[in-house]
Amino acid sequence: MNATETSKPRISLLGLGTMGTALARAWLAAGHPVTVWNRTAARAEPLAAEGAETAATAAEAVAAGDLVVTCLLDDASVGEALAAADLSGKDLVDLTTGTPEQARAREAWAHARGARFLSGGIMAVPPMIGVPESGGYVFYSGAEEVFAEHRGTLAVPAGTTYAGADAGAAALYDVALLSAMNGMFAGVTHAFALVRKAEMPIRDFASLLADWLTALAPAIHTTAEQLDSGDYTTGVVSNLAMQAAGVPTLLRTAEDEGVDTALVAPYLELMERRVAEGHGDEEGAGMIDMLRR
Amino acid sequence: MNATETSKPRISLLGLGTMGTALARAWLAAGHPVTVWNRTAARAEPLAAEGAETAATAAEAVAAGDLVVTCLLDDASVGEALAAADLSGKDLVDLTTGTPEQARAREAWAHARGARFLSGGIMAVPPMIGVPESGGYVFYSGAEEVFAEHRGTLAVPAGTTYAGADAGAAALYDVALLSAMNGMFAGVTHAFALVRKAEMPIRDFASLLADWLTALAPAIHTTAEQLDSGDYTTGVVSNLAMQAAGVPTLLRTAEDEGVDTALVAPYLELMERRVAEGHGDEEGAGMIDMLRR
Repeated sequence: MNATETSKPRISLLGLGTMGTALARAWLAAGHPVTVWNRTAARAEPLAAEGAETAATAAEAVAAGDLVVTCLLDDASVGEALAAADLSGKDLVDLTTGTPEQARAREAWAHARGARFLSGGIMAVPPMIGVPESGGYVFYSGAEEVFAEHRGTLAVPAGTTYAGADAGAAALYDVALLSAMNGMFAGVTHAFALVRKAEMPIRDFASLLADWLTALAPAIHTTAEQLDSGDYTTGVVSNLAMQAAGVPTLLRTAEDEGVDTALVAPYLELMERRVAEGHGDEEGAGMIDMLRR
Repeated sequence: MNATETSKPRISLLGLGTMGTALARAWLAAGHPVTVWNRTAARAEPLAAEGAETAATAAEAVAAGDLVVTCLLDDASVGEALAAADLSGKDLVDLTTGTPEQARAREAWAHARGARFLSGGIMAVPPMIGVPESGGYVFYSGAEEVFAEHRGTLAVPAGTTYAGADAGAAALYDVALLSAMNGMFAGVTHAFALVRKAEMPIRDFASLLADWLTALAPAIHTTAEQLDSGDYTTGVVSNLAMQAAGVPTLLRTAEDEGVDTALVAPYLELMERRVAEGHGDEEGAGMIDMLRR
């Protein structure tokens, strides 16, 4: 085994926002040689003091590394930053937020330039990077052998979850989880608005709310089993007909309390439509099908 | 201590839907004398076989009990069922689903008839009744001394949480938690719709989704602290400006994948409005204020 084989892969990191900087620090701390580049060069200075090489251009940064990691503003920025870089023989790991379609097109673009490609979707905020116990992780998609080859290096800043050979899969799962988060926060926003002026201390209500939503999370597994089997009426605990019977009370309460129903109304309407279509004996699985055009 | 003092309070239970029946069973199992009445008398038969007394009229049922519990279709049904009953000296615990305004009006109605009153909001489905480890509980509101007096009896079918002297409080907290649940399920519905045709087994995705939402639940406490302090920019982990930057990706992905954005769009629009109003350095607390008219 020669020196090159025993040394840790060299990382080229393009994009030093809060997330890119956190990633660079994690790889530096683990002993990887890291070359950084950022459009605004000043953001590289603190990392240089911590042992990173700085590159004057993105092309220079790419040339210095084995694994090229992009964490830029958007997909267009990736194309612009790498326009003049020689990617042949490189492995490009694109952690820039984008759509599945953008990731698929970026993979084709990278392949045309002689690079192998992985797309990543980061399920963490910057303070969770390099903190294994934070539970943060990154979805990766693209050729499985590229992922397998770099898994150890990729696992340095955060956990890794392989999402599939379709380059768009990481972005798809990333967007799916973020969308679910926004739905939960929409419900939480409505709930807090309802009780904002009520008697119970808001922190006591927060405990009840957090416990309640945590207790409901396992229902997600039941939904998956129903989607898998195609049988939407087995394992039903609280059917849509019963839930829909409560809809007028939910809407009327919000109106009486002066709370806009905009965040909760679309789901309640979808539920009532599903019941009207004769599926009152189901839970939510059938509503998932209704959402797909 | 005489026989009356040592015996368990007599329950009059009006309304034998799935929930009312589960409540009756729990009190019977704990040794309470239970008299039941239901508009359709046949529903009382199984309970009679288990030891319940059956009453031919609601008024007769009310006369037989110390604690009158209503678990009917809606608030109007409560007024109708009890129209001919003598409520003087009774304690009425109304577990019928309704709005806070309905509970307040029902309290005044009960007081005018000489009864004390508690309103309840059941945070459980029938299979959780009489199963302490299920975590199900009931919000109660109204005069605290009435609640304190009956707490032991009320704790038989499910846990008890006192929500305040305002008779509407139990319904308000009930509706708030159900609304939050619907928001979470709306997000889950959208997420499942996105990944429905993707490569990863749907059950594997369900595990990621359940873990993700469970991990996010503690953010609810941060929101409560911010609402309490009025300082919405302390403790911010992922600010609205960063979250709003990802909104086009979320919407575009749904459109590309053929998934209707109706369930998630209102929250994303509210987020963008809050950022446009100059609050990009906050998380969601300020959006709660925007929802109140």
